[in-house]
Amino acid sequence: MSLIVVGTMAYDAIETPFGKTDRIVGGSATYAAYAASFFVKPIQQISIVGNDFEEAIMEDLRERGVMTDGVEVVSDKPSFFWSGKYHLDMNTRDTLITDLNVLADFKPVVPESYQGAEFLMLGNLSPDIQKSVIEQLRERPKLIILDTMNFWMEIALEGLLENLKLIDVLLVNDSEARQLTGEFSMVKAARKILTMGPKYLIIKKGEHGAMLFHGDHVFYAPALPLEDVFDPTGAGDTFAGGFIGYLANTKDISFNNMKSAIIVGSAMASFCVEKFGPTRLQELTREELEERIQEFVDLVQFEIDLSQ
Amino acid sequence: MSLIVVGTMAYDAIETPFGKTDRIVGGSATYAAYAASFFVKPIQQISIVGNDFEEAIMEDLRERGVMTDGVEVVSDKPSFFWSGKYHLDMNTRDTLITDLNVLADFKPVVPESYQGAEFLMLGNLSPDIQKSVIEQLRERPKLIILDTMNFWMEIALEGLLENLKLIDVLLVNDSEARQLTGEFSMVKAARKILTMGPKYLIIKKGEHGAMLFHGDHVFYAPALPLEDVFDPTGAGDTFAGGFIGYLANTKDISFNNMKSAIIVGSAMASFCVEKFGPTRLQELTREELEERIQEFVDLVQFEIDLSQ
Repeated sequence: MSLIVVGTMAYDAIETPFGKTDRIVGGSATYAAYAASFFVKPIQQISIVGNDFEEAIMEDLRERGVMTDGVEVVSDKPSFFWSGKYHLDMNTRDTLITDLNVLADFKPVVPESYQGAEFLMLGNLSPDIQKSVIEQLRERPKLIILDTMNFWMEIALEGLLENLKLIDVLLVNDSEARQLTGEFSMVKAARKILTMGPKYLIIKKGEHGAMLFHGDHVFYAPALPLEDVFDPTGAGDTFAGGFIGYLANTKDISFNNMKSAIIVGSAMASFCVEKFGPTRLQELTREELEERIQEFVDLVQFEIDLSQ
Repeated sequence: MSLIVVGTMAYDAIETPFGKTDRIVGGSATYAAYAASFFVKPIQQISIVGNDFEEAIMEDLRERGVMTDGVEVVSDKPSFFWSGKYHLDMNTRDTLITDLNVLADFKPVVPESYQGAEFLMLGNLSPDIQKSVIEQLRERPKLIILDTMNFWMEIALEGLLENLKLIDVLLVNDSEARQLTGEFSMVKAARKILTMGPKYLIIKKGEHGAMLFHGDHVFYAPALPLEDVFDPTGAGDTFAGGFIGYLANTKDISFNNMKSAIIVGSAMASFCVEKFGPTRLQELTREELEERIQEFVDLVQFEIDLSQ
C-alpha cells in the first residue's frame, strides 16, 4: 500500500506572536511525509532540494520509511525559501520573502520504482507540475488528493480546472472555496465544486475545524481548542498527510472512513502547531497520538434522548 | 419543572442580503420562549411590552404553555424597537435604530406564581435588571443561565462581574469572551471566565458552532452547514431557549447532558435563521426537530480504528 507525496521541501523563516526562527526545514511534502509516516510505508517522495538541504533531515525521513529516489538534488542552487509573519489571529499572515531557487526548475520525474502506487497526494504546486505527475503514472492511483491555493486560481485557473477532472479529493480553505466558485455559502460553494470533478471536497477552516463534502453528505470535524497556536506553518500539509496516510493504512476510501481520516489529520495538525516547523511531529509518539484522538472523540460525542 | 425566562419582547426591522422586513416580532424572551416551549411547560415569562404588541402573539405563546403574568403591558408607549442591517457574512451587523421605548422603564416584578421555579434564563439586559430578578426569587433556582453582550462590558462591567458570581452558566460569543478577559485564545479566555463565577461557559461562534467549557472539559458543537442563513436575528436567544428547555425537560444538569442540550439549542437555532424573525419557530414541528437532530448526529459521528 504505497503513497506518493509530491510537494516542496524547503526552508522557512517564521515569525509569530510567540517567537521567531530564521531558518527551519519546511515545505508541503516534508510536513505531509512526516504525518503520513505514522500510518503507511513506504512513502514515495517527489520533490526538489538545493545544495543546502540537510542530509540529517533526509536520513530522518528515510528511517521513517520515506523513499527519496524522487527527490532531485540540485548542486548549484539553494532550496526553496519562504519567510512569513503571522498576526495574532494566526489565520492571516504576511509573506515577506519567496525565493523560488530550485523550485523554478522543478520538473518532477516519477521514478520507475514508484509506479503502481495506490495513493497520490499532490501538494500545493503549479497545476502544470501536478498534472505532469498524474500523466507519468501508468496506472491511475486508487485515490488522488490535490491541494491548491488562491495564487493558482489567479494565475493558472484553466490548468487547475483541468486537474479537478483528474482527481478524487480537493483540499482548499474556506476563502479559496469562495474564490473558486463565487459562492459565499460554504454549502453552495461545495455543491459547485463537486460538479467540477472531485467526488470529495475538504474545506479547511483553521481553528474552526474542517468539513468534508461528498454528494449530499457532510461531515464537520472541529479543531481541538488549543491554549496557544505557536506556529501554524505546515498545519494544512500535516493534516493532508495524516488524512491520506490513514486512508492508505486502512485501505478503505469510503466516506465513513474519510471522516475518521479527517479526525486523524486534525489530530496530527494539532501537534504540528505546537512548535516551530515540523519539530513536534519529529518528537511525536504513537501513544501521544492515540491520546489526542481520544480527546477529539470526547470533544464531539453526545447522546440525545428526545423521548420525554 | 418550571422555567423563568427574562428578556425583551419587541419589534424589529431587519435587512439582510436576502430581503427586508419593516416590522416583525422579536426580542430575546420571545425567541427563547418559542424555543423552550418545545421541551418544557410552563415557561414563566418576564418582560415588558407597549401598547402596540399584538395580542395574537401573546395568545400563541400562551397556547404553547408560556405564562404571561410577568409581562408588563404599558398602555401609553410603544414596545422596544430595533432596526439593523446584516452584511453578507451575517456575522456583522449595523444597528440602524434602537428605540428603547417601554424598555427604559423596565423594572421586572417576579409574580408570586413564579416563585419556586427551578430554571432561570436571564436574557441580555442590563446587569441591574438581571440581578433584581435573582434577588426577588426566595429560593435559588437549580440552574441560572445569563446572556450578556459587549455593550454591558463597556458601560456596566462592575455589575456584570457581580452577577457572574451568582449564576451557573454564562453565554457569550467569541469576541465577547475575548473582551471580558483580554485573552485572545478561547481556551485561555474560558479558563479565566470559569474563575469569575460561572461553573459552565458557552461560547457561541455563529456559523462555526458553539463550545461548552466546564473545569478541564470542553465540548464542541458545530453549527449545521446551511445553504443560506436568511436572517440570524434571534439565533442566540433561540439557542439559549432550546438549551435550557432541554435541561429543564430532562431534569439533568450534568456536563454530559449539557452537551446534548447544546446540540438541541443548535438545532433550534438552525431553524430560526431560515426565515425572518421567529416565523420558522412558529411553524416548526416535533418531527422536523427530530430529523434535524439526527442531521447533527450524522454531521459529527465517526469511528476510528488505530489498531493497524
